[in-house]
Amino acid sequence: MSPHDPPPPLLLRGGTVLTLDSAATVFRGTDVLLQDGRIAWVGPVPEVPAGTRILDVTGGFVLPGLIQGHLHLGQTFFRGLAEERRLLAWLRERIWPLEAAHDDESAYWCSLLGAAECLLGGTTTIQDIGIGPGAKGLLDAIAVSGLRAFAGQCLMDSGDELPAAMRAATDAALAATEALGDRFDRGPEGRLRYVLNPRFILSCSDPLWEGIRDLAGRRGWPIHTHALEQRDETEAVRQLKGGRDEIEYFAEQGVLAADLRLAHGVWLTAAHLTRVRHERFSVVHCPSSNLKLGSGIADLVAIRLSGVPVGLGCDGAACSNQLDNFQELRLAALLQKVQHGPAAFSGLDALRLATSEGAHALGLQHETGTLETGKRADVVVLAPGRPELWGAPEADPHDLVAFGASRAAVRHVVVDGHLLVEEGRLTRLDLEEILRESGRCLAALLRRAGLRL
Amino acid sequence: MSPHDPPPPLLLRGGTVLTLDSAATVFRGTDVLLQDGRIAWVGPVPEVPAGTRILDVTGGFVLPGLIQGHLHLGQTFFRGLAEERRLLAWLRERIWPLEAAHDDESAYWCSLLGAAECLLGGTTTIQDIGIGPGAKGLLDAIAVSGLRAFAGQCLMDSGDELPAAMRAATDAALAATEALGDRFDRGPEGRLRYVLNPRFILSCSDPLWEGIRDLAGRRGWPIHTHALEQRDETEAVRQLKGGRDEIEYFAEQGVLAADLRLAHGVWLTAAHLTRVRHERFSVVHCPSSNLKLGSGIADLVAIRLSGVPVGLGCDGAACSNQLDNFQELRLAALLQKVQHGPAAFSGLDALRLATSEGAHALGLQHETGTLETGKRADVVVLAPGRPELWGAPEADPHDLVAFGASRAAVRHVVVDGHLLVEEGRLTRLDLEEILRESGRCLAALLRRAGLRL
Repeated sequence: MSPHDPPPPLLLRGGTVLTLDSAATVFRGTDVLLQDGRIAWVGPVPEVPAGTRILDVTGGFVLPGLIQGHLHLGQTFFRGLAEERRLLAWLRERIWPLEAAHDDESAYWCSLLGAAECLLGGTTTIQDIGIGPGAKGLLDAIAVSGLRAFAGQCLMDSGDELPAAMRAATDAALAATEALGDRFDRGPEGRLRYVLNPRFILSCSDPLWEGIRDLAGRRGWPIHTHALEQRDETEAVRQLKGGRDEIEYFAEQGVLAADLRLAHGVWLTAAHLTRVRHERFSVVHCPSSNLKLGSGIADLVAIRLSGVPVGLGCDGAACSNQLDNFQELRLAALLQKVQHGPAAFSGLDALRLATSEGAHALGLQHETGTLETGKRADVVVLAPGRPELWGAPEADPHDLVAFGASRAAVRHVVVDGHLLVEEGRLTRLDLEEILRESGRCLAALLRRAGLRL
Repeated sequence: MSPHDPPPPLLLRGGTVLTLDSAATVFRGTDVLLQDGRIAWVGPVPEVPAGTRILDVTGGFVLPGLIQGHLHLGQTFFRGLAEERRLLAWLRERIWPLEAAHDDESAYWCSLLGAAECLLGGTTTIQDIGIGPGAKGLLDAIAVSGLRAFAGQCLMDSGDELPAAMRAATDAALAATEALGDRFDRGPEGRLRYVLNPRFILSCSDPLWEGIRDLAGRRGWPIHTHALEQRDETEAVRQLKGGRDEIEYFAEQGVLAADLRLAHGVWLTAAHLTRVRHERFSVVHCPSSNLKLGSGIADLVAIRLSGVPVGLGCDGAACSNQLDNFQELRLAALLQKVQHGPAAFSGLDALRLATSEGAHALGLQHETGTLETGKRADVVVLAPGRPELWGAPEADPHDLVAFGASRAAVRHVVVDGHLLVEEGRLTRLDLEEILRESGRCLAALLRRAGLRL
């Protein structure tokens, strides 16, 4: 069967179903029928359609596939190579020189390695901020992976200590990203959408932001960028932009009026939140990355109170090491509890960041993020019998899953009706091949980069 | 073969060996030979002893078994039943009434459930703070589990809102704990040591602390207790003890001069650290628990600078949900990085908390915590080919393991030379039986407790 054939109907039988719908409905011991790439039925299925594949998931949890709103699959090779640095040194001393040495082949395998890890951890939708050199390899890999995705080329045309290979001419960068968008947007079965990825203010000129804004308006593509991650970064932005911080600058450039997905937002203030609450603005929170690079702890309680949807992401293997979104959602909740008290952020709140609210942050709330009839068939099943998920029937299953689950419990993962992880193993991607090709490509990349590691 | 037979020699062949010795020596592609319950050799083994079991661990990481210095195995049943409360409400409204309903049988299965999870996550040594009712069941379960352990009865004789079943008469409590110590100390093959477990100042009278201090001196048993976990707790201690905080009170009672292992210590001050640095005093850090109950973030950098050894623990399933010490050590490092900067706490620092330094915190530094010839054969092997552990050969393996590993990567676990987890499965404990008996016992316990959940 080719990956492009429509998947056969799939029946997940007998699990505890966390729908994550607006009422947080939970069904115990019921069925989920997936048909034609959509959720056809949640509840006991009296008559099973002919040709249906049946998986007994009794005792396991069934929930919407997880959504990661901020990822750098192109940094997967660089895990462990940029330790113990704050953001700007981390970028300039290690990440940019390494990314600059990517070609399409290295980017392809690097991204597939990250995509494999995402799938094995229950992630079904990602938003990738892209890379410069190798962007086509990244997009090809995401298309092959079977993930639902927003992705695009990462754009930079200015800034200190930027390797020459990454500094595109402004017009050429805009033309290249539009051409890639034409080629990949609505790619395989509509799962891949193009997103405009200017890296951050410090590496994008005023004309580039203007071009991005115009392109977003003309093509209807969203904008995904980094901002307010570290204080040093905002300080540098103020120096560069006549005292304006990121949100002030975006407002002035007209970027705030676009569909803007902002990664990090650790240092969003009450004034920022007042300003953005009526825009199409979302925040993608990356707790492991924010701790590891010493950035700070975002105030999710305040951000959500202002009405801004919050998604969740692992950022990249070069900062957070793991692309396990269950770990991120647990951490997100724990960090809010220590700031605001144990009742300020529930297990359900945490799960929403990676499902229903994470979908909203990417404008996908009508397609994915809940288990409701008609939504796309993106589902994760957690194995029964895991000690860390074992609790009394009286315990809230959202709490059990949010605080107990991790990649270790992920048994089956379905994207768009395709069973991409079965019994904890990838069905479409060949992990051994990915690891082998990754080793070969990374060694060559490191020779090209010529860094002293 | 009975669990008490000496294990056959075991050769772990070809892994990347993180010894965690004082020089943090790493051997790539080498062997570890385990014989007579000890580490017989680290390095290429030219001649394999007759009858040796050989496990090929090429491409995997081999490291000392993890040490958890603060656990409540007796709370494993209560996962998800005490959410969203601060410490004192969490204890009084839920945990104490639930613990009070334990009997030896429920405590046995509850503890075995937790022990199974510890083993599956690579933990080989624990220190359990114990329970009151059911203490014998807890100790029996630990003895059966094969874990190396400190454990004892949890003692309380006073305090508000303490269920009658938990409030022992002081002299009876001291006599009971001594009797249990006589029975269990140096139990199976010397792996189980008795520890005196007064719960915390708010539930122990002055005469009980005096009795504990005398018993510790007379029998040479260490003391393990909770202190400085939440500000509310310290405030209550000051009100009860004429303005003295925990450390001042312990100093006055002579408890500081004992071998004192203090769980939490979130609110240790510079003055405290000056006072305890020359005592036999250690701290066991429980980061997930401290976040989830809203306690705060301990300053490990300051504690370690003062010379106090720091261990690590998951506390209990009723607060942290997971008993995965890899997750705790990653979190411990991330929390120090966000407080003190990314270079303030390395992957190696994090691994030490759960290995060499964690052993020191329990006075076990001559027995376990490093892979060195002559130490007890406590080893964990991480599976090769895990995407989240994949990095360039140039990356520091301590960083890769500390930030990438979790229970998901644990393949083999050896305690005292016995292979207790093989290919990710328990060899000695029957997980299905444990889950089944746990369900039965928990339902009965909840009926006895009569709580409205």
